[in-house]
Amino acid sequence: MSTNARFAVVLVRPDSPENIGLAARGMANTGFADLRLVGLDRLEAPAWRTGIHAESILEGARFFKSLEEAVADREIVLGSTARVRHDYPLVSLAEAAERIGEYPDAARVGLVFGNERTGLTQEELGRANVRFHIPQVGRQPSYNLGVAVTLTLHAITFRSGPAAALRRDLPLDHAAQAEAGRRFSAMLDSLGFMHDTNRAFIVEKVQDIFFRMALTAKDRDVILAMFRKALEGPRERRPRPPKKAGKELP
Amino acid sequence: MSTNARFAVVLVRPDSPENIGLAARGMANTGFADLRLVGLDRLEAPAWRTGIHAESILEGARFFKSLEEAVADREIVLGSTARVRHDYPLVSLAEAAERIGEYPDAARVGLVFGNERTGLTQEELGRANVRFHIPQVGRQPSYNLGVAVTLTLHAITFRSGPAAALRRDLPLDHAAQAEAGRRFSAMLDSLGFMHDTNRAFIVEKVQDIFFRMALTAKDRDVILAMFRKALEGPRERRPRPPKKAGKELP
Repeated sequence: MSTNARFAVVLVRPDSPENIGLAARGMANTGFADLRLVGLDRLEAPAWRTGIHAESILEGARFFKSLEEAVADREIVLGSTARVRHDYPLVSLAEAAERIGEYPDAARVGLVFGNERTGLTQEELGRANVRFHIPQVGRQPSYNLGVAVTLTLHAITFRSGPAAALRRDLPLDHAAQAEAGRRFSAMLDSLGFMHDTNRAFIVEKVQDIFFRMALTAKDRDVILAMFRKALEGPRERRPRPPKKAGKELP
Repeated sequence: MSTNARFAVVLVRPDSPENIGLAARGMANTGFADLRLVGLDRLEAPAWRTGIHAESILEGARFFKSLEEAVADREIVLGSTARVRHDYPLVSLAEAAERIGEYPDAARVGLVFGNERTGLTQEELGRANVRFHIPQVGRQPSYNLGVAVTLTLHAITFRSGPAAALRRDLPLDHAAQAEAGRRFSAMLDSLGFMHDTNRAFIVEKVQDIFFRMALTAKDRDVILAMFRKALEGPRERRPRPPKKAGKELP
């Protein structure tokens, strides 16, 4: 039935049932069917008032305790944010739609939208392989949640312009990407890279980098094998160079 | 203040104040400010609930008795329709946005949206120089009104793709286009083209063609001068050819 069966729309802690309904209606308009809700366990009646012709989508909605569970089976996760920050790569909606086109048609995609006022947390946004924003004039206000979902889905379904120049391989699913990040972090730990004051920071950075790469199975195998070698092989501990007291050489 | 000061958004007989607010919020997001409402004389409170950060747009909204009055000062009128019919030219939203780019920057544009359930009447749609639809999957349901407005404005403000290949001249304003149609119809009447059973049909067709051409002042002067000549000069009435009874020649 659904034109875009490989996509899931994930709403994280939405406040307004009207907005959920509006998002579901936008899904029906643009050919999406898989709605996932994080942080709630039921739908309130007003969702049906705005979810015109989207009853089956609302009835089929699934509920998850965390974003991690909601996107575990996705190979590509896109996270929407209204905050344009410059400390991480952020693409426009049009670029995000194009990026999806670079992955194989088999890639299952999660499109993630945060709460109306607070958006996604840093940790949630960090799970996204691609972070995108919907262009607007001025920095405030952001789009209504149901409108933002529909703008995004419309851009994906009716993307015009040339076919993607780049073709990427199918990434691991999200759960396996997260697991690879954890294993890599554990290896770094064994190698003595971490201590109590930097552990949390390094673990977060590793996850961030791994999700940004949207690792394929081959990527993971190469990276982990490389580091396993480093762990197993004879390691020469070189003495730390003495702390420099003088000027740095250019 | 407004990025798109030459545009007016015209909502014709909207039922839901929430949708008016949602449209106004979409206008704020995408840099539009001129909101015109046809068929109501005040805004109900719920418009302010959904019109987040769009208070000044709602406060500045103007009320009109008819679409004709609401777009009288526009050179280009675009009418949105969810009904894809094949008896008149209909372009997609992306093509409509491109068409706007073909007109001079001085052209004042009216973007017209009908009632949530019934849309624009045939007569209202006939006033549009360009009729467009927002692509969707399947024929029903149509987009929520506030969503449709925001999709349209977003497509206009953030249009990507090459600059328009065609550059058009500035058309007459809508009131002058309508007046040219009326004068042309009156001339046709004087020439004996109309009788009681076809008058309404011909008048409507003439208006339809005139609006579709988005007449410039020069177009109008040439067309009306040509027909004035025909009216003033000696007209030879040729006898009607006899009705063909036999076969048509190939």
